[in-house]
Amino acid sequence: MTTVWVNGRLVDPDRPALLPLDRGFTLGDGLFETMRAYGGRIFRLQEHLARLEAGLLRLKLPVPAGLKDAVLETLAASGHRDAMVRLTVSRGPDGEDGLEATSHPTVVVSAKAYAPDPRWYEDGIRAAVVSARVNEFAATAGLKQIGYLEPLRAQAEAKAAGADEAIRLDTQGHVAEGGMSNVFLVVEGVLRTAPASCGILPGITRAAVLELAGDQGLEVFTAPIPPSALERASEIFITSSLRELVPVTRLNGRPVGDGRPGPITLRLLAAYRALTRETGTPS
Amino acid sequence: MTTVWVNGRLVDPDRPALLPLDRGFTLGDGLFETMRAYGGRIFRLQEHLARLEAGLLRLKLPVPAGLKDAVLETLAASGHRDAMVRLTVSRGPDGEDGLEATSHPTVVVSAKAYAPDPRWYEDGIRAAVVSARVNEFAATAGLKQIGYLEPLRAQAEAKAAGADEAIRLDTQGHVAEGGMSNVFLVVEGVLRTAPASCGILPGITRAAVLELAGDQGLEVFTAPIPPSALERASEIFITSSLRELVPVTRLNGRPVGDGRPGPITLRLLAAYRALTRETGTPS
Repeated sequence: MTTVWVNGRLVDPDRPALLPLDRGFTLGDGLFETMRAYGGRIFRLQEHLARLEAGLLRLKLPVPAGLKDAVLETLAASGHRDAMVRLTVSRGPDGEDGLEATSHPTVVVSAKAYAPDPRWYEDGIRAAVVSARVNEFAATAGLKQIGYLEPLRAQAEAKAAGADEAIRLDTQGHVAEGGMSNVFLVVEGVLRTAPASCGILPGITRAAVLELAGDQGLEVFTAPIPPSALERASEIFITSSLRELVPVTRLNGRPVGDGRPGPITLRLLAAYRALTRETGTPS
Repeated sequence: MTTVWVNGRLVDPDRPALLPLDRGFTLGDGLFETMRAYGGRIFRLQEHLARLEAGLLRLKLPVPAGLKDAVLETLAASGHRDAMVRLTVSRGPDGEDGLEATSHPTVVVSAKAYAPDPRWYEDGIRAAVVSARVNEFAATAGLKQIGYLEPLRAQAEAKAAGADEAIRLDTQGHVAEGGMSNVFLVVEGVLRTAPASCGILPGITRAAVLELAGDQGLEVFTAPIPPSALERASEIFITSSLRELVPVTRLNGRPVGDGRPGPITLRLLAAYRALTRETGTPS
C-alpha cells in the first residue's frame, strides 16, 4: 500500500488525481527525488530538496512552496518509519505552448514501506557492462528527470544478461554509472568514481560516500575512469539512496577480487549506516 | 480547446483522469505519436500506429486494442478537420516492481485544431547547431518516448541563440536531427539525411520525403553526415508530421544558399502536400 499526496492533499492512489494533459505525463517535463526514511526521518532531505530545486531552476520551473512539509506529511500519514519516499514535480497541465514557467506545477509525493534485501550486502550482487551508454553531451545530463526509460532499459539489458545491475559507460567509453546507481571502484587502494562531466546523476549517497572516504583518509580520485579499470578493480560497489552501498561481487560473470564484499566497501557501508542512524534519532 | 479521450471514453481535460502513480507520469514509461489530420483524415495513420506498436514491443508493453478507433473517435469528437492528434500509451499504474508487461496500459488521445504558420514556408526558419547531442548509444534510441525533456531543452538552447529550431549532432559529431524534427541537406545536388544509426527518431514524414525524392529521381544518400556538410549545403530543411517540410534559410546566423527556400525543398514540399491532399479526400 502506497500513501499518495497530490497538490496539497492525501489522495486515494486508486482514483484519478492527475489531469490527462499534465506535461509530466505527456512530455516527462519534470523531475523527481527518491529518498529513504530511517526511524521516521528522511536521510539528507535538505540535500534532496536542494538538488531538486537546482534542477527546477535549470528547467525554468518555479519551485513550489511547501515541498518539505509535503514530504513529511506523506511519510507521517503512511505510518511507516522505514520507507521510501518519492517527490515528483512536473510543469503541470499543458496550456500555452513553449517552455515558459507555468504557475501550476504538479506536486506528487508517495511513501511506502521499504526494506532492502540483506543478501545484497552479505553476498554482493552481479553487474554487467551493457551496450546502452550515458550521454554526457545531453542537455538534460545530471537531471533526475521523470523520463526514466533509459535507466529502465539499461537495467533490462543487464537482467537479460543474468545480472542485477547495469554498468553504463559514457559515449566516450569511460565508466559512468549504474543502471539506477552510481558506481565506485577500488583500484590499487584508490577509491574511484566518475565525475559529473561523464553525464552521471550525481547521487546524494555518492556525495555522502565521498565525504566518508575523505574522513577515513582514503585516497579518492574522481576523474574519468577507463573501462580497463573495471578488470583491475579489487572492489566495486554501487550507491543509491534506497540501496545505500551494495558490493558488486561479480562483473560480466567473473568474480570481482576474491568474489566477496571487499574491506573498503564494508568499512564505508558501516560508516554510511552510522550516518543514517544519526538521522533516525530525533534531535 | 483540446478534445481528450482516456481509456475508452472522452473526458473533460480540466478534470483528473490519470492515476497518480501511472508509470507514464512517474517514469515516462511509455510512448507517443503526434499526427496531423487533413480534411478530417489522419495522414499515414497506419505508419504511425505501426511505429508505435514496434516501440511497445521493444518495451515489452502490450499493444492495447482499438488504438485506431480511439484516434478516429477523438478526432471526430473534436469537430476539427485540420488538426493535430496525439496518441500516448503508458505502462499504466504502478503495481509490481520491475519491467514486466502490465495488463493495464493507459491510453490517452488528444485532438485540437492545427494550422502551421505560412511564413515558415515563405521565408524559412532559422536553425542553430546546439551543444546538446543525440545519443546514438542509448537503449531508447529511435523511440518516441514520453520523456521528451531532451528535445525540449535542445529547442530551448536554440531559442536562446535566437533560432527557431535546434540542429543536433550525435555524440560522434555527425549531423543527426532537429530539436523536434528530422533534418535534410542538399549538398552538391544530393539529398542527405542521417541514418537511424545516428540515434535519430525515424520520422514518418522523413520516410515519406525519402520516397518522394526517389520518385523524383533525386540522388539520396542516408549515411552519417559530417558537420562540415552544413556549411556546404545549398539547401537545408526540417521535416515533422505537424510542420511537413520547413526550409531552413539561416543557420547559426548565416544564410543557407541564397537565404531563400531552395528549389529542391519547394519541389519536395509540393509533392508532400499533394500526398496529404490525397489523404484528405475520402475514398
